[in-house]
Amino acid sequence: MEITIEKLKELTKDVVLLEHAIATLSWDQETYMPPLAIGERGEQLALLQGLLHEKITSSEIGKLLDDLGADEDNPAGQLEYKAPIDRAYIKETFRQYKIQTRLSTKLVKDLALETSLSQAAWIEARKKSDFTLFQPHLEKVLNLTKQKAEAIGYKDTPYDALLDEFEPWSSTQEVSNIFDSIQPWLTDFLGKIYNAKQVDDSFLLKDFDISKQEAFGRKVLEDMGYTYDRGRLDVSVHPFTTTLGGNDVRLTTRYQKDFFKTGLFGIIHECGHGLYELGFNENLKGNLLASGTSLGIHESQSRTWENVIGRSYSFWKYYYPILQKYFPENLNNINIDEFYRGINKVEPSLIRVEADEVTYNLHIILRFKLEQELISGSLKVKDLPEAWNKKTEEFLGIRPKNDANGVLQDIHWPMGAFGYFPTYALGNLYSAQFSSVMEKEIDVSGSLENGNLINILNWLREKIHSHGASKTAEELALGITGEKLNPEYFKNYLENKYKQIYTI
Amino acid sequence: MEITIEKLKELTKDVVLLEHAIATLSWDQETYMPPLAIGERGEQLALLQGLLHEKITSSEIGKLLDDLGADEDNPAGQLEYKAPIDRAYIKETFRQYKIQTRLSTKLVKDLALETSLSQAAWIEARKKSDFTLFQPHLEKVLNLTKQKAEAIGYKDTPYDALLDEFEPWSSTQEVSNIFDSIQPWLTDFLGKIYNAKQVDDSFLLKDFDISKQEAFGRKVLEDMGYTYDRGRLDVSVHPFTTTLGGNDVRLTTRYQKDFFKTGLFGIIHECGHGLYELGFNENLKGNLLASGTSLGIHESQSRTWENVIGRSYSFWKYYYPILQKYFPENLNNINIDEFYRGINKVEPSLIRVEADEVTYNLHIILRFKLEQELISGSLKVKDLPEAWNKKTEEFLGIRPKNDANGVLQDIHWPMGAFGYFPTYALGNLYSAQFSSVMEKEIDVSGSLENGNLINILNWLREKIHSHGASKTAEELALGITGEKLNPEYFKNYLENKYKQIYTI
Repeated sequence: MEITIEKLKELTKDVVLLEHAIATLSWDQETYMPPLAIGERGEQLALLQGLLHEKITSSEIGKLLDDLGADEDNPAGQLEYKAPIDRAYIKETFRQYKIQTRLSTKLVKDLALETSLSQAAWIEARKKSDFTLFQPHLEKVLNLTKQKAEAIGYKDTPYDALLDEFEPWSSTQEVSNIFDSIQPWLTDFLGKIYNAKQVDDSFLLKDFDISKQEAFGRKVLEDMGYTYDRGRLDVSVHPFTTTLGGNDVRLTTRYQKDFFKTGLFGIIHECGHGLYELGFNENLKGNLLASGTSLGIHESQSRTWENVIGRSYSFWKYYYPILQKYFPENLNNINIDEFYRGINKVEPSLIRVEADEVTYNLHIILRFKLEQELISGSLKVKDLPEAWNKKTEEFLGIRPKNDANGVLQDIHWPMGAFGYFPTYALGNLYSAQFSSVMEKEIDVSGSLENGNLINILNWLREKIHSHGASKTAEELALGITGEKLNPEYFKNYLENKYKQIYTI
Repeated sequence: MEITIEKLKELTKDVVLLEHAIATLSWDQETYMPPLAIGERGEQLALLQGLLHEKITSSEIGKLLDDLGADEDNPAGQLEYKAPIDRAYIKETFRQYKIQTRLSTKLVKDLALETSLSQAAWIEARKKSDFTLFQPHLEKVLNLTKQKAEAIGYKDTPYDALLDEFEPWSSTQEVSNIFDSIQPWLTDFLGKIYNAKQVDDSFLLKDFDISKQEAFGRKVLEDMGYTYDRGRLDVSVHPFTTTLGGNDVRLTTRYQKDFFKTGLFGIIHECGHGLYELGFNENLKGNLLASGTSLGIHESQSRTWENVIGRSYSFWKYYYPILQKYFPENLNNINIDEFYRGINKVEPSLIRVEADEVTYNLHIILRFKLEQELISGSLKVKDLPEAWNKKTEEFLGIRPKNDANGVLQDIHWPMGAFGYFPTYALGNLYSAQFSSVMEKEIDVSGSLENGNLINILNWLREKIHSHGASKTAEELALGITGEKLNPEYFKNYLENKYKQIYTI
């Protein structure tokens, strides 16, 4: 039995190595690759993706999983093992093997081709703010995505199969229940804020020298425990974190000269993802469990650092005097209370990536509902822009004036990533739930006031990072907080914070 | 028949894509990779190398080559084809297929492992200037290299098999004959220079701001016709050029604050390699013939730009006034004649990469002779340092004071690249031979005096670059100059240039 598991680990090691090689090519594409190289880079990536598919679906892996008794009903195998980590390993391998063997090479290739064309069309359509240019592509991608869901299989609804890719072992029904319970509350809470005295953040829109933004951002990054012997920070059009190796987790950000928040909170957010990837236990290294357990849990880490920590009053008690030294001309006349309120300003906006903590989840729930309707067929692609605009008005009280600021703003659908959006909101909810326990177990505000960010990292590392994918999202929540995901924590978090900021 | 060749091209396309993916991972390793990622990067590269080996040795390729009648005696196949380019394609595929199928997976893996260990030991040994730390590793690598030569097979001597990897279709005997004919001449010529009035280049050792060095270097680079939509220039410990895609050829250089020549001539040299890789005909793109035809020809391109062009008087007639504006404090009191002599100073030195045009080939011939003796067994590894020092004295009149500045200076043997060194000298010889024709066919000095480097590029592109590997080195020489490689051109080139500089 031991031998079988060791063999399985050996075979899947190549899968991890190929994933990291692919990540290297993708990172290069987004950072340093010369523009005309894009065509062949696509072919290189397609080849490696194909080889990865061959590796994970190899008959040797199938045979070993069979020998271990892993099947649909018992993904972790039917035999007794000494270590729960071995059960987790078999379960994760079976999950990936199952999905990949069910996808035909033809479907994988068709999806790769169509999503590539669709992303190109989307860029053009967004530039011209004209959904009709993108519509036929989205129809094709949607059609292939439905085929994909049918091929993978599901319990209740095709969306289950799609969601599982990003949030394994969760279900559409559970996510729906949670979202339905917070959406009206959020819209209502937003109304209260909207009726209160508004916050002034005009000082954040002044001229912030980019090299100083970077220098301050790197200071915070280093204080968070991120080190350049195992990572890098570069610039890209869209910020991201990517894992090129167990000791190679890289971040990117972008800076806006006239909007301070983009650069710094982008860095802190991505570093939250990066620290998760850098914190797996040694015994997971190089295998399939050396990975975030779900995108929701991943986002909980970036959001904890960005919002719970990075947008907290205690954090800025330590960092604001330092920041003022970087930008005296903009900040010397702004006191910490004004600054704190400014960076936490709540405002219904059209663009998800610019949204504050209160409105952000509404952007997500909107997308979650629309993509479910698209998958079920109750909403036609041609009717999507109108449905988008209507729901934006319903949730946020404002209406996009054009497609670029509405339905065309995100890359997820063009790239065929249906089922991805909800994980952003789940991340916010998990973050609040985990943080409530962290605040009981360690002196969070005291640590922050002393610039001791490592205290926070250590707690997150012990409770979350170290486990990698050896515990599911639900197992983590149960282990740390004693209950499954519960949106009440998030509501409490928002209430405590924003009632004070907006004196409501 | 057409179908068979097309099938072959399709199969080998994956080989090229994998080579470029490997190049991307290696480029990243040398430029931006965080230091602790090195261990896993090695595993990623080993995996991709293994997959590449599988691809090129696939039974499908073997079958197609059989069908085309390609064998040892008829590497280009035994049938009639319309296009010589198809014959060249079959020949190159057969060459690679033959070599790779003859190397067992075990030998490939052993070589990868031992050369990796040996490079680590070499770094340590060089740091401590202690050959004995490296000796047992070199013994192992040498032993495996001999096994490799036996596995591949050869006509006259095992060294033929090794040389063929870097200089296909050449022979040890030919190279020996050429080297034997120039070595005494070079040592003699060097003696004459040594007895003449020496050149002063102390002004090149002043403080040259690195960002200005880079700015000037990039100006020359762009004038040479290198563009950033298909390439990049970065910094690495050892300068190199690498092809990550048909439209992605990247250069690196290094700058020394107190030694002007390193940065600029490094850039021009690497750009010479890069322009070759960027100049293949469209009909070769993405296939096995889209490659330099041999390292000797490759080096002829870098050396033509670095030495024949970049160290010529005409070149500096245009560029020296520009350079003076970058570094007035160092150069305003130096006239162009002094500058020209300074950058062409001849001086026997211990380090190959710092050697001038006259002494450079002596460094190479020394290595060529020693590695032949190592392969044949007439020289034992333990006696290598003494043999090295003795030969240095014989060829250059100076003797290394320690191993770091002698036998431990180059990475080639630690990485198992026996047979590589001679291509550097062949490049110098081809460069002189090609340039003598170029000077007859176009107005080289007139072009240079007007800063018209594109004129040079166009000639090189038409005569050499465009053909990629569709013509062998010998075919190129015959086509362009009407004769095989002839070292007399190089002697004439040196005589004309250095008799004037040293008034001998």
